[in-house]
Amino acid sequence: MDYSTELNTRPRPPASSFTYFWLIFALSQALGVAFVVMLGVWLYKYQKGFAWTENPQVEFNYHPLFMVMGLVFMYGEGILVYRVFRNQKKIYTKVVHASVQAIAVIFIIVGLKAVFDSHNLVQYNFIANLYSIHSWLGLATIILFGLQYIFGFVAFMYPKLGQNGREMLMPLHRYWGVAVYGLAIATSLMGMVEKIIFSVEDYSKKGKEAVLVNFICLVMVSAGLCVVYLVCRPEYKRIPLPEEQAVNEK
Amino acid sequence: MDYSTELNTRPRPPASSFTYFWLIFALSQALGVAFVVMLGVWLYKYQKGFAWTENPQVEFNYHPLFMVMGLVFMYGEGILVYRVFRNQKKIYTKVVHASVQAIAVIFIIVGLKAVFDSHNLVQYNFIANLYSIHSWLGLATIILFGLQYIFGFVAFMYPKLGQNGREMLMPLHRYWGVAVYGLAIATSLMGMVEKIIFSVEDYSKKGKEAVLVNFICLVMVSAGLCVVYLVCRPEYKRIPLPEEQAVNEK
Repeated sequence: MDYSTELNTRPRPPASSFTYFWLIFALSQALGVAFVVMLGVWLYKYQKGFAWTENPQVEFNYHPLFMVMGLVFMYGEGILVYRVFRNQKKIYTKVVHASVQAIAVIFIIVGLKAVFDSHNLVQYNFIANLYSIHSWLGLATIILFGLQYIFGFVAFMYPKLGQNGREMLMPLHRYWGVAVYGLAIATSLMGMVEKIIFSVEDYSKKGKEAVLVNFICLVMVSAGLCVVYLVCRPEYKRIPLPEEQAVNEK
Repeated sequence: MDYSTELNTRPRPPASSFTYFWLIFALSQALGVAFVVMLGVWLYKYQKGFAWTENPQVEFNYHPLFMVMGLVFMYGEGILVYRVFRNQKKIYTKVVHASVQAIAVIFIIVGLKAVFDSHNLVQYNFIANLYSIHSWLGLATIILFGLQYIFGFVAFMYPKLGQNGREMLMPLHRYWGVAVYGLAIATSLMGMVEKIIFSVEDYSKKGKEAVLVNFICLVMVSAGLCVVYLVCRPEYKRIPLPEEQAVNEK
């Protein structure tokens, strides 16, 4: 049973219904930039700032920063590519989508290096690797993200499957795309809870730092809610261009 | 622009395509029961068991148990009602949906009482209320769940809005339904991280208890992934019965 052509026959929505789209998109961008900046400010101002391997304990701070930049911010941008570039040729949109997610991969690698260095290179206060549920879920999230990238690339970019194969995999690519994005946000929140409990003094007294870290999480969640809303509303789905219709219809 | 009747004109999928539906549904039920039982076993066997106000510190244990039973397990069941009862009259399905979510509300109230009692009724080791990001996000989740219930009830059950109002609100009810479910799972995971750090000894040594709590979280996430998959695949959407079609079409 083939539902994929349903999209082609659906009436094109009027431009006016995109006012909300652009408003929510603008909000998603503002919130996205805000939580990355707020996270950077917190780590810089309250948590000893940044360093590479010369100071592994401080190097840890690159872990939350790069993970969130990769697996939440860039990932969200990569998802939205298909909603924002609605009238460009599909192949260009695909290339932008894959490129944005490639930047996410680089950030993830840096974030991973930072956390393993901070555990393995210290001389004292040795911390075990991969024992916490944050690390287990984080690893699962990264593996799923990697599989999505590989399967997506092979199926839709190069060597590219036939029409039938692409139609079968597309709903799964969409589902896992949003599901892993949700997992990434949940895992980031769990990591924030760990870091807060271990490093924020007098958290329960609701001081400046405590309120700041809580708001970082709230802003991140709000950005995620915007991204998921924009990608899930069927009205906002990319409608194939007239010249693509003939190719898509079997 | 009205997309709601799109569903009516879509071809009814063949029964064979529901084999996967029922397999994933069975998995969601097994995982759902498993994480609630595992959570109960952990709290009973490793975390001092259960008590009411006579022992407020132990009463805390009812907080994770009832919250997860209400906001994750029952909530997930409530979502799936519309996918499982596909051939019943819509009004019956609605009543079951609203009833299951009503049970969730009762569990949430018990879960909230347990955590506030455990903070307010102790004689020593006083813990502040509502300072952590877990509590902030948890409160937001409960408020959003409550609003969903009230808006859903008023719009779709009683006094029930007109066709136009229902069509306008339905996509929002669906979006927020799944979004708040995701928030509930994320908040539960954050609460688990807190409880683990505060109460599981030698967590980093990967002993029996450590592995158990990690698996509780993994199983909960897996159950959530099943529920979201079943509710989001368009093929599994409830198709209006023949006698409902005339009423739905404007």
